[in-house]
Amino acid sequence: MARMVDNGSAWRVFGPGGSGSVPPGDRGLAYGDSLFETMRAHRGEVPWWDAHWARLRHGSGRLGIALPPESEVHGQARGLLDGADAVLRLQLTRGSGGRGYAPVAGMEPTWILSRHPLPRPCAPAGISLRWCDTRLAVQPALAGLKHGNRLEQVLARAEWDRPDASDADADEGLMCSMAGDVVCATAANLFVLRDGHWSTPPVERCGVAGVTRQWLLDHYPIEQRELAPAEVETADAVVLTNAVRGILPVARLGERRWPLHPEVLGWQRDLARAHPAFASIASEMP
Amino acid sequence: MARMVDNGSAWRVFGPGGSGSVPPGDRGLAYGDSLFETMRAHRGEVPWWDAHWARLRHGSGRLGIALPPESEVHGQARGLLDGADAVLRLQLTRGSGGRGYAPVAGMEPTWILSRHPLPRPCAPAGISLRWCDTRLAVQPALAGLKHGNRLEQVLARAEWDRPDASDADADEGLMCSMAGDVVCATAANLFVLRDGHWSTPPVERCGVAGVTRQWLLDHYPIEQRELAPAEVETADAVVLTNAVRGILPVARLGERRWPLHPEVLGWQRDLARAHPAFASIASEMP
Repeated sequence: MARMVDNGSAWRVFGPGGSGSVPPGDRGLAYGDSLFETMRAHRGEVPWWDAHWARLRHGSGRLGIALPPESEVHGQARGLLDGADAVLRLQLTRGSGGRGYAPVAGMEPTWILSRHPLPRPCAPAGISLRWCDTRLAVQPALAGLKHGNRLEQVLARAEWDRPDASDADADEGLMCSMAGDVVCATAANLFVLRDGHWSTPPVERCGVAGVTRQWLLDHYPIEQRELAPAEVETADAVVLTNAVRGILPVARLGERRWPLHPEVLGWQRDLARAHPAFASIASEMP
Repeated sequence: MARMVDNGSAWRVFGPGGSGSVPPGDRGLAYGDSLFETMRAHRGEVPWWDAHWARLRHGSGRLGIALPPESEVHGQARGLLDGADAVLRLQLTRGSGGRGYAPVAGMEPTWILSRHPLPRPCAPAGISLRWCDTRLAVQPALAGLKHGNRLEQVLARAEWDRPDASDADADEGLMCSMAGDVVCATAANLFVLRDGHWSTPPVERCGVAGVTRQWLLDHYPIEQRELAPAEVETADAVVLTNAVRGILPVARLGERRWPLHPEVLGWQRDLARAHPAFASIASEMP
């Protein structure tokens, strides 16, 4: 186990032999052969730990990556958080070794905990979106998982940092699949209100089964269905969600603008009761 | 720069500040945000260095990853090889840092050199193949590149290591795209002879533009075209290629068996003249 601190972030690495650093032959590094969770911590606790661990366990089963004991990981996470409000990241790799792509049975995983400062709050009136040119490949074998193959998201997120980018002040970008349907933002799930009905894209072909997405599906009548780009642009309200920021109303997508929708404010108030980190955010809302 | 040795393999890590180990916040580890080359070294030299470096440079341009000075990397590679016959791996990551998926402009890359023992030689009469169930997603933004998002290959390669796997003694597995056409093996390109004409699948939608594949395209009349699984099974000869093993005749795919084809022996003899590491392999052939 090693501690490293950089720009307000801190890392601890756990793995075979307790080496404390990431072995250069780690398969997470070599092939993105890993899973991760990005969690919101509140006063040193992770209110949605159970949901994140359940998704990690599901992913480890699908990819055949061994899972370390939950109590040990949770305990180390609490130690690293040390009472802080922070973003907590947990990455689990298949471990080190194996010749080429072939994994070795019984490989001991590497896991990495890191603590990061909270992001700047978004404008309470809502965030700005753009469309990304980079598309998401259709891959049912990996869909839904928060796995370590994220080049599509990296390329999409880089689009509006280019010197010649349009919409350079956008907060997030929407991504379509190779089939043309809208899937998600680079780091958030998408919800759309049309004719009084909410819907969100399914995550069986691409996209990530977000923890906040699942919380919404569990608490409100929301249909999972494919959405065309025009259905987002002509929606009555658009919302993004992720586990770090909670529920983010969308104020603008390209030229289209939306006022805050009362149903979204209701969702935010419900979320504030379910997850204490989002209570302060809700109280900032009008 | 750090040296580490394990099971006959050795690693050296180069990066910002010369830390010598892989930072736990490295983006290659976090997102597979990296490229790599796997090369055949002969008596401490890499005969196809120029072709590998050209592919790495092309990939770094497409992904926007900075490239370290070639002379420094090549010099360090020679030092690590120390005269050996070996497999040399070079991995280049975008570096450490950046919030979430957003890369930071001007980021200093991490690069990792590793030396590995040569694999066991394949049977001169040819190798055995199976079909993989795992399919390759269609993603033109990444196709052709040897990038660090390799979960599809890991899942495909794991298929015939399962206790209940059929064809458990296969040497390699063929992969189809999500569209159903045959693309490649998990770690090799594919060439098929039908009616006197050779063809190989294109790599603009998925797959890797292999260095040995390119050598063959440069030296023989070979068409790049989509291949259906039945066209492989009913071919007159089938060949795999990669930069570590050169040209591998296929002796079996499922129930189908092929004798060694004289044109393949001719290719191997030509390759032996072009790349000294493959001279000894060709001399073992009948």
